[in-house]
Amino acid sequence: MTTNYPDDSYSLHTDFYQINMMKVYWEDGIADRKAVFEAYFRKMPFDAGFAVFAGLERVIRYIQTLTFTDSDIAYLRENTDYPEAFLQYLKDFKFKGKIRSVLEGEIVFNNEPIIQVEAGLAECQLIETAVLNAINYQTLIATKASRIRYVAGPEASVMEFGTRRAQEFDAALWGTRSAYIGGFDSTSNVRAGKLFDIPVSGTHAHAMIQAYKDEYVAFTKYATSHKDCVFLVDTYDTLHSGIPNAIKVANEFGDKINFAGIRIDSGDLSFLSKKAREMLDDAGYPDAKIVASNDLDENMIMHLKAQNARIDTWGVGTKLITAYDQPSLGGVYKMVAIADDEGHYTDTIKLSSNSSKVTTPGRKNIFRIIDNESQHSEGDYITLADESMDGVETLTMFHPVHTYIQKDVSNFTAKEILHDIFVDGELVYDLPHVKEIKAFAEERKKVLWDEYLRISNPEEYPVDLSDKCWENRNENIKQIRDHVKETTSVHFDRSEL
Amino acid sequence: MTTNYPDDSYSLHTDFYQINMMKVYWEDGIADRKAVFEAYFRKMPFDAGFAVFAGLERVIRYIQTLTFTDSDIAYLRENTDYPEAFLQYLKDFKFKGKIRSVLEGEIVFNNEPIIQVEAGLAECQLIETAVLNAINYQTLIATKASRIRYVAGPEASVMEFGTRRAQEFDAALWGTRSAYIGGFDSTSNVRAGKLFDIPVSGTHAHAMIQAYKDEYVAFTKYATSHKDCVFLVDTYDTLHSGIPNAIKVANEFGDKINFAGIRIDSGDLSFLSKKAREMLDDAGYPDAKIVASNDLDENMIMHLKAQNARIDTWGVGTKLITAYDQPSLGGVYKMVAIADDEGHYTDTIKLSSNSSKVTTPGRKNIFRIIDNESQHSEGDYITLADESMDGVETLTMFHPVHTYIQKDVSNFTAKEILHDIFVDGELVYDLPHVKEIKAFAEERKKVLWDEYLRISNPEEYPVDLSDKCWENRNENIKQIRDHVKETTSVHFDRSEL
Repeated sequence: MTTNYPDDSYSLHTDFYQINMMKVYWEDGIADRKAVFEAYFRKMPFDAGFAVFAGLERVIRYIQTLTFTDSDIAYLRENTDYPEAFLQYLKDFKFKGKIRSVLEGEIVFNNEPIIQVEAGLAECQLIETAVLNAINYQTLIATKASRIRYVAGPEASVMEFGTRRAQEFDAALWGTRSAYIGGFDSTSNVRAGKLFDIPVSGTHAHAMIQAYKDEYVAFTKYATSHKDCVFLVDTYDTLHSGIPNAIKVANEFGDKINFAGIRIDSGDLSFLSKKAREMLDDAGYPDAKIVASNDLDENMIMHLKAQNARIDTWGVGTKLITAYDQPSLGGVYKMVAIADDEGHYTDTIKLSSNSSKVTTPGRKNIFRIIDNESQHSEGDYITLADESMDGVETLTMFHPVHTYIQKDVSNFTAKEILHDIFVDGELVYDLPHVKEIKAFAEERKKVLWDEYLRISNPEEYPVDLSDKCWENRNENIKQIRDHVKETTSVHFDRSEL
Repeated sequence: MTTNYPDDSYSLHTDFYQINMMKVYWEDGIADRKAVFEAYFRKMPFDAGFAVFAGLERVIRYIQTLTFTDSDIAYLRENTDYPEAFLQYLKDFKFKGKIRSVLEGEIVFNNEPIIQVEAGLAECQLIETAVLNAINYQTLIATKASRIRYVAGPEASVMEFGTRRAQEFDAALWGTRSAYIGGFDSTSNVRAGKLFDIPVSGTHAHAMIQAYKDEYVAFTKYATSHKDCVFLVDTYDTLHSGIPNAIKVANEFGDKINFAGIRIDSGDLSFLSKKAREMLDDAGYPDAKIVASNDLDENMIMHLKAQNARIDTWGVGTKLITAYDQPSLGGVYKMVAIADDEGHYTDTIKLSSNSSKVTTPGRKNIFRIIDNESQHSEGDYITLADESMDGVETLTMFHPVHTYIQKDVSNFTAKEILHDIFVDGELVYDLPHVKEIKAFAEERKKVLWDEYLRISNPEEYPVDLSDKCWENRNENIKQIRDHVKETTSVHFDRSEL
């Protein structure tokens, strides 16, 4: 649609090093050796108490259409020294592996594997960049949206209209889908409405007032053309011109229109909304809603509500669609196990002088530990994949770093939250409608106690490792450090390190 | 590529209110009435001394392909009460207007019209959202990149590799193109390399070390497969394992490879790079480069350079591609004039209780005032479009708000920076190669004195209004305030406002 290559694909939407590594593996004969990679993020976005996962549909579509086209191959042929046999290998490439994932709308936390890929090394490597690109952004926005929805409260409407401020076209499109999943009611982006069947809203802008110069005339023209009217009242003067003209037109048109309300897009939203409420009530329009917008986010909405601003509908743009206060989730994708020639797995680890960057080895599983009585969650429990929770009656959950923080849990149900999405390269999951995903997100949040929902300084939700998983990590750290000691002859003075 | 509609287009990539306003104009018979809209941003991003414009190629491709397809029309038919005749009008819609723009790579400043659209009201309205979506993001990233390039210095290499952290796919693609325009040398995104012919770079990741478990073995495998080798040395232990293994492999492979250098992705980059430099020099590799990455931006690079870190190449991801410290430019697009039935224009204005949101009426022109002796810029001078600079020998330039700040300029050349892009809906501009745009950006920066280039607390570059433009603005403010007074009967106590 916007490129010079009609056959353009997303196969090259990856980092160059991924393809260079594929070539190493391919030449070394291990491109198809099985490995397990897991995607996770290390820190909660916005210091939130929970995050809302999104991005899976995008990942699925990407995997399903992942092929190197003729122009992709031609580009590589011209710009690298790749041998023809390797290019042919790429030409035949198809994702044939397994992908497990938490479902869109699921609540997720830092340091738990939200996507798990088991496939040939080359496949695992190629898809890393695009998978992270999709889930990092969409999870960030779904989370931000859920915070805004939480503060706005269940009675308010929240509308997304950040397209013009989004970071390019895709962010507007997938961002508003994520916002809808996170709890928004509608979007202004019509294409998102078309592609995802999301409710679309919007009436008119300041430009329409300018086009007619006279605000009253402009409102009249709008009312002549549209049944549902929300008049934007701050083009010239909200209280002296905008609201009086809106009321005048509502009076004149009577039942010919549905005077749904007014929108205020500048000035002091607390003061103006209260004044507007009085004016609308006095004029006999107690049901006319007040829509407010102007650089809103969850904090500003909370401050306005604390001042009893009379706002029924919040229009949120820039600060939602860019996740303004933290525009990146920082999700990573790390190898946790690799098979040998016979297909037997051993675990892998990556060390780092930043302790938070050390990985947790081994293919894992996530259980959400739901208390049978309260139906609230006690935390998430990460096990190695071969551990079973069947018959476990009492669970000792402990903080993986500060291990003295622990509790014994009994009378619980352990719910797996990772699900098979692709098996042997085939999609085995039915994509739900985004409305179902939204309802699912709403439902899943119910297991959280209030202390995790608070938008400022929430309690830390427990994401604990099983004994086996924790011990396996320590063992792997020891092994790799011993290996490094054995294989290097470099020694430094202590003072130099 | 990723939608269920093979004929999907960007015509619905707009806010719903735009189409609702089109309907008002169409029903009122003024959809084709000419208007002029201008796009600009109100505040310098990152408090920078200058910005670098990007996004025009995206806008051009969007305008050229702007058509409502069958599925677009079908969506509107099902989801609105638009009459068939209006849908038919949309079906026949084509952009037939004029677009002027500054060129990509041009340096630009707040409050100057960087894109100017003259077209039928309905056309002006429809394209607003997508135009802003593209130029807001791309200008932001080109600007951020130019700041990073400035701090890194002309000898250093700077590489973009933020795709996994970008806000969805398009941001990665167009963001890295913007970064290249702003001064970056290469990207990791292979598709950007293909679509825009940008240099692509990258060797291997931590995962390759994990795949072979042994770092030395992994480097050996890479060296067997690739001539150019940059080894990533921080998977297990940079100084004790990574660098010694890199040197060992370089020694063993000798001329069979080009040992281009090492990459450090964690730990203290200042300390490690100095230590690494010593080790490489001692081993006889003074030409091996040190590549560093890990949450870098212009400030961190400056701090590292201030400590004499021995880093030759900077790899920048998250903080560039998301413009982390200010992820939105906040550009707007406002009507500045509208024609009557005879085609005579009158100017339009939008007031606001936020003084920075009041628009400057009238179709405008931008002249860059270049001192003939120093070849440096004295500032930008915004005139009404019908003003000529021919024969003007002395110019009094004054700050449009703090008018006491003024200077007389003579012996200058006034260079127009807005250019015709579309005329009567036809593209009249030859799209340059992105390498030319990059060179143009480099060239254009040369008119700036150092005080505007500084990344922290730079001098404010003068963007001044001509007398006529300034007086016209004041006159329009007065007129509209008088009109509001005349047409409203609402009066408040002073205390209420």
